[in-house]
Amino acid sequence: MKLSKALMLTMREVPAEAEISSHQLMLRAGLMRKMASGVYNYMPMGLKALKKVEDIIRDEMDKAGAQEFLASALIPAELWKESGRWDTMGPEMFRLKDRNDRDFCLGPTHEEVFTDIARNEIKSYKQLPITLYQIQTKYRDERRPRFGVMRSREFVMKDAYSFDKDSEGLDISYNAMYEAYKNIFFRCDIECKAAEADSGAMGGSGSAEFMVKSEVGEDDIVFCSACDYAANIEKSPATAEVMKKEELKNLEKIHTPNAKTIEELVSFFKVDSKMFAKTLIYKIDEKVVGVMVRGDREANEVKIVNALGGAVEVELADDKTVFDATSAKTGFAGPINLKVDELLVDEEVSNMYNFIVGANETDYHYTNVNYNRDFTGKVGDFRKVTEGEKCPKCGAPINIARGIEVGHIFKLGTKYSESMNAVFTDQDGTQKPFIMGCYGIGVNRTLAAVIEQHNDENGIIWPLEVAPYQVIVVPAVFKDEVQMKKAEELYDALKAIGVDVILDDRNERAGIKFKDADLLGIPMRITVGKKIAEGEVEFKLRSSADLEVIAYDKVIDRVKEEFKKI
Amino acid sequence: MKLSKALMLTMREVPAEAEISSHQLMLRAGLMRKMASGVYNYMPMGLKALKKVEDIIRDEMDKAGAQEFLASALIPAELWKESGRWDTMGPEMFRLKDRNDRDFCLGPTHEEVFTDIARNEIKSYKQLPITLYQIQTKYRDERRPRFGVMRSREFVMKDAYSFDKDSEGLDISYNAMYEAYKNIFFRCDIECKAAEADSGAMGGSGSAEFMVKSEVGEDDIVFCSACDYAANIEKSPATAEVMKKEELKNLEKIHTPNAKTIEELVSFFKVDSKMFAKTLIYKIDEKVVGVMVRGDREANEVKIVNALGGAVEVELADDKTVFDATSAKTGFAGPINLKVDELLVDEEVSNMYNFIVGANETDYHYTNVNYNRDFTGKVGDFRKVTEGEKCPKCGAPINIARGIEVGHIFKLGTKYSESMNAVFTDQDGTQKPFIMGCYGIGVNRTLAAVIEQHNDENGIIWPLEVAPYQVIVVPAVFKDEVQMKKAEELYDALKAIGVDVILDDRNERAGIKFKDADLLGIPMRITVGKKIAEGEVEFKLRSSADLEVIAYDKVIDRVKEEFKKI
Repeated sequence: MKLSKALMLTMREVPAEAEISSHQLMLRAGLMRKMASGVYNYMPMGLKALKKVEDIIRDEMDKAGAQEFLASALIPAELWKESGRWDTMGPEMFRLKDRNDRDFCLGPTHEEVFTDIARNEIKSYKQLPITLYQIQTKYRDERRPRFGVMRSREFVMKDAYSFDKDSEGLDISYNAMYEAYKNIFFRCDIECKAAEADSGAMGGSGSAEFMVKSEVGEDDIVFCSACDYAANIEKSPATAEVMKKEELKNLEKIHTPNAKTIEELVSFFKVDSKMFAKTLIYKIDEKVVGVMVRGDREANEVKIVNALGGAVEVELADDKTVFDATSAKTGFAGPINLKVDELLVDEEVSNMYNFIVGANETDYHYTNVNYNRDFTGKVGDFRKVTEGEKCPKCGAPINIARGIEVGHIFKLGTKYSESMNAVFTDQDGTQKPFIMGCYGIGVNRTLAAVIEQHNDENGIIWPLEVAPYQVIVVPAVFKDEVQMKKAEELYDALKAIGVDVILDDRNERAGIKFKDADLLGIPMRITVGKKIAEGEVEFKLRSSADLEVIAYDKVIDRVKEEFKKI
Repeated sequence: MKLSKALMLTMREVPAEAEISSHQLMLRAGLMRKMASGVYNYMPMGLKALKKVEDIIRDEMDKAGAQEFLASALIPAELWKESGRWDTMGPEMFRLKDRNDRDFCLGPTHEEVFTDIARNEIKSYKQLPITLYQIQTKYRDERRPRFGVMRSREFVMKDAYSFDKDSEGLDISYNAMYEAYKNIFFRCDIECKAAEADSGAMGGSGSAEFMVKSEVGEDDIVFCSACDYAANIEKSPATAEVMKKEELKNLEKIHTPNAKTIEELVSFFKVDSKMFAKTLIYKIDEKVVGVMVRGDREANEVKIVNALGGAVEVELADDKTVFDATSAKTGFAGPINLKVDELLVDEEVSNMYNFIVGANETDYHYTNVNYNRDFTGKVGDFRKVTEGEKCPKCGAPINIARGIEVGHIFKLGTKYSESMNAVFTDQDGTQKPFIMGCYGIGVNRTLAAVIEQHNDENGIIWPLEVAPYQVIVVPAVFKDEVQMKKAEELYDALKAIGVDVILDDRNERAGIKFKDADLLGIPMRITVGKKIAEGEVEFKLRSSADLEVIAYDKVIDRVKEEFKKI
């Protein structure tokens, strides 16, 4: 590409609308532009990079034996009604009607469609296993689209679906995708962790999220400091701290005016927050549920929902519901005489002695409370782990960091094949539902994650395999005919051997050209300047400060050297 | 691809839902499946062919200097309100609201979006000319989706938009696209004509449709039998027949009970249909318009609308409106004492002598009517040309055939840049609106057109450049280990040199494999059978009945020979 003929879209200023570096740089380098909140147009340079990511994904999917499909984005409501999700998907799903008043959605995901394809096209166990994938545009009406293409409403996703005859087959299909994902993110040069993820609510039996560490991430990821353990905090099991045994003291009701929060209670009672047990009142679908965790812990809603066998809506109860359950203002709930449909007690609470809880009476708390003697409930793991607790795999201390999900693989089992009656004839002649897996990668988000991890104050630093262009040739002085001629020859020669190359043939000062080349992040820059008189050019990697002076006829070899490193 | 591991979707029966051969064959060969009316999922083989078409288009667009973009399908209503099309686009446009009740459409076309991009990103004449294109999914809620992907509601389109500083520039941009389109359809091996098309309603100044002749086409195309003239019948100018001069006779009112149609009048008056002039009453937006054409001619609504300076709604008036205009039942309208907002008179009618028209009185007609003496109106070309009339370019007789539009190029001029205030600073320092062109290709429809033109009773016959796979290697006997081994080696060798090759390693009889290979339409078939004992294989082109017996080590050269013909 010759820059003089290209639409050059770089911006010097940091756009006010963009909070994170990938979003800022995608705008500044002219990779994309906003069309509406969470809806973006890809400009030529951005599209080229996006397609490089797609090509890597496609290559690894094909190598893993997956077959590429392309489903429509318009999906008739009937399919979603069959799976039951037409009613359970909230306002995140874009819905529309056609001219005959038939309901459609814009696919936020395609489990229903691929289950439908499988039940129509796969009749026998002999045709299994099969993994289908597509790279396709998805629609999710996010409540708060943000961070540019990191969380957008129209986005490209690679989604794959595997169909197996049994769960051993699913394990193989799932592992093949796991390996493919590792390869994909490795080739994109993204540092990411495969974190165990919750699979309860979707009815599956195994799940991993590929998480990129990021300050602006929306998930908390638990990493072990010693081994390779990683898990979403929603999933990571917590081990109850064992408390020193104490003699049980007598229950006492204490007047605690205006002391509602753990902080207020700590300063009122002058004891450690570990001496309290919080009782949270939740509204979970139609049920009112009490959840007890130690005063210094946080409840884990995913674990709570899984303990109840799944739910659609989970929220902390409003004051009215709390009053109905406790006969008190919010802040004084406790387990004794609590009127709820179910009481969940974190295991740690069941191990405590002589602790403090709300008395279900405004401005009162009980002290010297003990599990079993004073109340009972369903005991289990209902809390989030905290920094420094023991790794469930090796026992070393864990770290917690924010992360962004770039990929997710998931054992679905028979969730969709059963509800949609997608069956095949097995070797024994019986009809069985397909055992399914689903596997997603956010393509735009992966591109943004690459930029998030590869940039400096001057711009993007593309890894070679994702770079929209790999080499930029810069004639230093526009009016110098020799420089222009030699630069053009080099450009043609690189193009001829299949390198994606830019010639910056604009009538601009060299300084501006270098600034743009840095902002665009082109991995290799070749400057044809004064030294061309001695048959030499300058070669510079975007990732390094070094300038290499190289003979003009050797510079293509130098470029090839970089390609060999891929 | 090894067929034993692929989802094999061929069908022996002709599906009842499909009327035309491309639709039937796309279903039978398993290229696609219906998701909903006018909405299709592409299966692996179909997607591969679709991508071959996309690659050809991309290649020719890039060669023509166009730059690839990717705009969103979701478009905010505001843009369409600026151009005025939010209100004028009918139910063909899918509309939806987001969770905040903001209006969006699913883009049926992207003039507004690209005009918006240009006004934001192109500031100076120095940046011009620029042509942007995308290969992107479009949505049109067709009233009658049919013929498979020929007329569907979700489809892939290549749309391009050019921006120039003056009309000479637009001519150059337009011609570059014209040449690119010719190359694209040539490489797809589609026989098609670039037909002059109407551009009036869109406000442009030049337009050509790339039309494929087809029985099921929805447009009538005028072809010259001698020169290269071709035009949409909407556009093709009609030359008024010169009638023999006669002396003007006296007007007479004749009682013509129940004679309303031209056929009825011909049999009543016992004269040729050329002796009549029909007066059609149209409702055009808010106006009532009378249109007169000779009895044997058909009115041309596009010419009529252009004469009125454009319109949104055009329909023949209902009986009530006809009665208000004529004081008579429908069928007796005529130009004398007609109460309409405008009367359009086809030039041919103005040349006639002593002809017959409706009397604006139920069951009466006038004879010996003459233009000027008895009535006047706006004279012009308001009719469709007919088979055998003179070519407007060379005078030879014309033919008329049905055609399907696969591409359309269009000089838009300033229609969008003016309404949306998209301007640049010209060399003289003044602000000027961009001079625009737009250029579309229906990608799925092009694929269907390829099949429509390349098939026989056994299946598809892919042209080499569009074929999803170019070679199929068939071991004749599944259980013959030598055949299987040699076939596999050949498969690997072809793959290694970049050929898209299928190995039919299924445990099926050779006859079934041959039938599937024919149905799939793979251009070259290599059969590894008994003759492999003598080191020989069979080579067959799908397009020919000949079987060539070739030495095993020479067959790759034979394959390469075919590639050289591209």
